[in-house]
Amino acid sequence: MRWVLPDHIQDALPAEASRLEALRRKLLDAFRAHGYQLVIPPMLEYLDSLTTGAGQDLKLRTFKLVDQLSGKTMGVRADMTPQVSRIDAHLLNRRGVTRLCYCGSVLHTLPSTLTATREPLQIGVELYGHAGLEADIEVIRLLAESMCVAGVPAARIDLGHMGIFRALAAGAGLIPERQEELFGLLQAKDVPDLKLLVKDVASPWREALLALPSLYGGIETLDHAAERLPDLPDIRAALSDLRRLAAALGELPVSFDFADLRGYHYHSGLMFAAYGDGSPAALALGGRYDLIGAAYGRGRPATGFSLDLRELALRVDSQASAGAVLAPADDDPALATAVARLRAQGQAVVTALPGHEGTWQEAGCDRQLVRRDGGWTVVALEGEI
Amino acid sequence: MRWVLPDHIQDALPAEASRLEALRRKLLDAFRAHGYQLVIPPMLEYLDSLTTGAGQDLKLRTFKLVDQLSGKTMGVRADMTPQVSRIDAHLLNRRGVTRLCYCGSVLHTLPSTLTATREPLQIGVELYGHAGLEADIEVIRLLAESMCVAGVPAARIDLGHMGIFRALAAGAGLIPERQEELFGLLQAKDVPDLKLLVKDVASPWREALLALPSLYGGIETLDHAAERLPDLPDIRAALSDLRRLAAALGELPVSFDFADLRGYHYHSGLMFAAYGDGSPAALALGGRYDLIGAAYGRGRPATGFSLDLRELALRVDSQASAGAVLAPADDDPALATAVARLRAQGQAVVTALPGHEGTWQEAGCDRQLVRRDGGWTVVALEGEI
Repeated sequence: MRWVLPDHIQDALPAEASRLEALRRKLLDAFRAHGYQLVIPPMLEYLDSLTTGAGQDLKLRTFKLVDQLSGKTMGVRADMTPQVSRIDAHLLNRRGVTRLCYCGSVLHTLPSTLTATREPLQIGVELYGHAGLEADIEVIRLLAESMCVAGVPAARIDLGHMGIFRALAAGAGLIPERQEELFGLLQAKDVPDLKLLVKDVASPWREALLALPSLYGGIETLDHAAERLPDLPDIRAALSDLRRLAAALGELPVSFDFADLRGYHYHSGLMFAAYGDGSPAALALGGRYDLIGAAYGRGRPATGFSLDLRELALRVDSQASAGAVLAPADDDPALATAVARLRAQGQAVVTALPGHEGTWQEAGCDRQLVRRDGGWTVVALEGEI
Repeated sequence: MRWVLPDHIQDALPAEASRLEALRRKLLDAFRAHGYQLVIPPMLEYLDSLTTGAGQDLKLRTFKLVDQLSGKTMGVRADMTPQVSRIDAHLLNRRGVTRLCYCGSVLHTLPSTLTATREPLQIGVELYGHAGLEADIEVIRLLAESMCVAGVPAARIDLGHMGIFRALAAGAGLIPERQEELFGLLQAKDVPDLKLLVKDVASPWREALLALPSLYGGIETLDHAAERLPDLPDIRAALSDLRRLAAALGELPVSFDFADLRGYHYHSGLMFAAYGDGSPAALALGGRYDLIGAAYGRGRPATGFSLDLRELALRVDSQASAGAVLAPADDDPALATAVARLRAQGQAVVTALPGHEGTWQEAGCDRQLVRRDGGWTVVALEGEI
């Protein structure tokens, strides 16, 4: 049974692989058109670099390896965002706004859900060096445009804000371990366990924390939040930012979710999640993470989003592939010319090899080159030949 | 020092990354045009699957990890060819000739040379289900065309044959461990240690093995080999195949090297290595490996090649990147239209964000949109703005 793959690990066979490759190109082209430059960080880094500033969730998800050259512990990346922050902070070291994008496999020790892959194909953009809402607006618009380009327009973009969670957790006087636990319960919207966790927390923090999971919906959610949450400067600022964002993004299907803390623990401010039509799970996650860069020697404001290309590809209508043209084994120079011309036009041409068995259809051929009137013509391929 | 990478591991920053992406697309497009279908095997598999049929070299190069789901040992792929064989043998299970291609990172525990990366970006093609020279000819022609498309035409393509090594090693009665050692010495062309290893081997095997490192050069090498090697059926067949190949590939700069056993141990017949102009190291390696598939439940003849895209990118002239257009922060709808039009043409347009510091050149901008005669025009970007 040497062909069995580990659970939550899979091959992409030709039909899926060609969909993934087409999506990859469309998204990277859209990012490039908006000035986002591609970087390719490595699969492996020292564990310290990969998990700096990250929460326990990311650390537990990271495979560890021993470096035979240095004896130090390395990790296989479980998330590319910290790597791109490292590149911005230390390698590029530009003074101005820096726009970067990336695409690559990440590996997880355990799947995040019962059906999740352990090898997401992460693709995303990051914008560094700008703390203003204009940067968030640019990134959210690019996310919406990317999903359109992919053929999966966003049916809903939920906005949230980590500043509200942090202000409440600090006000409640929770120690970091408890905060981490709270964070997990809110991510999971696990209200029963949330009630248990906050039962000894003083008012008004207890009520405010318990209110978070029900604070979701349209623009009215901002008014509900202002009523039910303590009137703290950080919370006031967060609500005001969300209101301005919603106004600026009027053309997009924006809503709010104050317990929507998915993604990794490094997020620091605005967060957002985009959903396809009828999809219960978010297809893309993003937000502010102004804290990571500092760990690499230079703190810079940062915002961005990422998504799993495999997940996105599942939502894309699988058009029939473009097919291929079968060329016979024949030494005629005119045939070679015809084949070269078709290939230059971007068509796939398969040359018949002597002794081929099976159907040509299984090799993806739907047309063939035949000799006709002294030249070579493409006609439909029907049945066995 | 959280930004230091492990030795022989590196980021690709924007200039290199965009070169890699362009090469990746050109080669995958060339493969597709010849009917090779893309597959994407996983980064991780059970160790048994990854190293089935492989030599000690590949086993030592493979990082090992424990699967937290099954408790079994997994490996991070060090080579994609066995994975693609598994896909052909077990998943696709087509009767006829199957053409597949792939591109992805592989990881090595130790670098193969003092300057090698531990994360090559492997790209290649594999042709399954055809044992004839026609398949080898197709694959070698595609290699030559791929190198042209990449802008690094092959200056030399060396042909060799594993059948000759295997016939001599078997005739010499070497046990498998010794054969493996011999294989390594021939790969390294380490003649002093080769002499030591074969000193107790009987004639004519000893002389024949010692002759291998000097059997290289043009078509006359085939005559020298016929004179100096024992007249065995396997050796006669190998020499005859090489002669037919050379005749068929008359348009390519073909030469011969009988000690050229680079690549992994799974090769079984014809082998080849392609060199760029003035490059001492081979840029692409390939050949027959008819033995791997059997380990996955179905033995199929197989031939193919692969190369490291990072290595290839080093040989490509680094043209100045296409640059980007800077658009001011301005609400004029005519500006939005102009920006959308440029982006639809494939141009990169960066929107200025308030408070940007540093130069626009560092963000890749070389032109800008300015208001002129009531419309928006692209002009050169000069100096600070």
